[in-house]
Amino acid sequence: ATPSDSRPTKVQELKVYEINERDRGSPAVLKLSQKPVNSLGDLVPFSNKVYSGCLQKRLGITAGICILIKNEPEKKGDRFEAIYSFYFGDYGHIAVQGPYLTYEDTYLAVTGGSGIFEGVYGQVKLQQLIFPFKLFYTFYLKGIPDLPSELTAPPVPPSPAVEPSAAAKACEPGATVSNFTN
Amino acid sequence: ATPSDSRPTKVQELKVYEINERDRGSPAVLKLSQKPVNSLGDLVPFSNKVYSGCLQKRLGITAGICILIKNEPEKKGDRFEAIYSFYFGDYGHIAVQGPYLTYEDTYLAVTGGSGIFEGVYGQVKLQQLIFPFKLFYTFYLKGIPDLPSELTAPPVPPSPAVEPSAAAKACEPGATVSNFTN
Amino acid sequence: ATPSDSRPTKVQELKVYEINERDRGSPAVLKLSQKPVNSLGDLVPFSNKVYSGCLQKRLGITAGICILIKNEPEKKGDRFEAIYSFYFGDYGHIAVQGPYLTYEDTYLAVTGGSGIFEGVYGQVKLQQLIFPFKLFYTFYLKGIPDLPSELTAPPVPPSPAVEPSAAAKACEPGATVSNFTN
Repeated sequence: ATPSDSRPTKVQELKVYEINERDRGSPAVLKLSQKPVNSLGDLVPFSNKVYSGCLQKRLGITAGICILIKNEPEKKGDRFEAIYSFYFGDYGHIAVQGPYLTYEDTYLAVTGGSGIFEGVYGQVKLQQLIFPFKLFYTFYLKGIPDLPSELTAPPVPPSPAVEPSAAAKACEPGATVSNFTN
Repeated sequence: ATPSDSRPTKVQELKVYEINERDRGSPAVLKLSQKPVNSLGDLVPFSNKVYSGCLQKRLGITAGICILIKNEPEKKGDRFEAIYSFYFGDYGHIAVQGPYLTYEDTYLAVTGGSGIFEGVYGQVKLQQLIFPFKLFYTFYLKGIPDLPSELTAPPVPPSPAVEPSAAAKACEPGATVSNFTN
Repeated sequence: ATPSDSRPTKVQELKVYEINERDRGSPAVLKLSQKPVNSLGDLVPFSNKVYSGCLQKRLGITAGICILIKNEPEKKGDRFEAIYSFYFGDYGHIAVQGPYLTYEDTYLAVTGGSGIFEGVYGQVKLQQLIFPFKLFYTFYLKGIPDLPSELTAPPVPPSPAVEPSAAAKACEPGATVSNFTN
């Protein structure tokens, strides 16, 4: 008989910060629409730094692309379709796809992962703290073993003022995960 | 003991229409190959409207990108790799990836979702009715609770002549899902 | 009662070669960063041929895009975010997303599939044999029925010198899967 699915379905929360420290040449705004206002046709590849929710550890980077879908003048913002991954050094990565609105929190789909995230599914809440430089994510993950405690330390409550520890910013020994992605 | 997976594996069919009403500036054909014939290098970001299969409700939009892979002169068409999402207002979204052939029906992978589609997997059949303006999709969804009846009303059989109801086209109250995506 | 998930969770290995025979106009290197060195903003749509691990059968193609994330001079290479699918003719396709490093093997996420790969999840190991023309992949697949024996013949051990059989290269009858993707 085929063994039935024994994947864990309990929800595990993983909280991380994504911070653009303006040292990676990101984002690369490609105005391919050739229109003065943001328009379908514009593409925005990006890659920012990822820190643990407790802001004591540099984890890695984000990497992917935002596809401009629509400028929404009445909301003073834009709708993007975002397709990217979160990298966590030796722990592996999580791939996501979904809406990125510059004026509102959204939920994206978790589409898969590698390493400790092999077989992951679920969704992730995106909260913007400082557009577009500081974001807070709450992953609701299923299908994977218990997360390591290094990733689940209590988070600093999200606010525009939060900053990573100096040690994490400097990627000092003990202030990164193993082989943090850069 | 780790709880075993209790995700529903029954297949639920969800049928929707994707219609380009030529009022969203879509598609944005980016001839980045700089070749006269459609060629690898060309990219096509797009966003069209999504209606329920019964054509009585505006649900939302599609949003994503088609990557031109190959022009197939003998088939008088093109192969694209399509990566996009379907948006359903407050219900959430479904992310998909797979082949879009301008000359033939295809199946794409359902890679994830949010809201009522959190944890979804399966595939979706793409049927072209009027290239490239009117398409009919049959999703075969697993891993999610029962779909709301608003999304599962009997569909209008797909044909080139079908049109959304005037109320749905006008996004009148009662002719959209809650907070339909636009 | 909702039936519980009966998806197979056993791991099935699938090994394939991806070979760029320089006859598909691939890759299309789009230097959209407009910088002399590889930089965020550059995009690389691509499509190569896929052969069975035993190199006796042409299966299909890859199709997708690599997003340049970062040039790494100290590693003499680049980091890309790769989003693409593997096509297997009538068998269907597998969608993947994750890291492609020109200087190191990586694992990507399997995000979904169609046909015999409907509902697939897991990860795939990417090994580069000749940059960027010959790669070997080991898929670790879950969630699907037993793979057909045509896809699981013992592989030729990966090395830079391996070549598909002449019959597979020529797509001769018996040396392809049914309706191999091209």
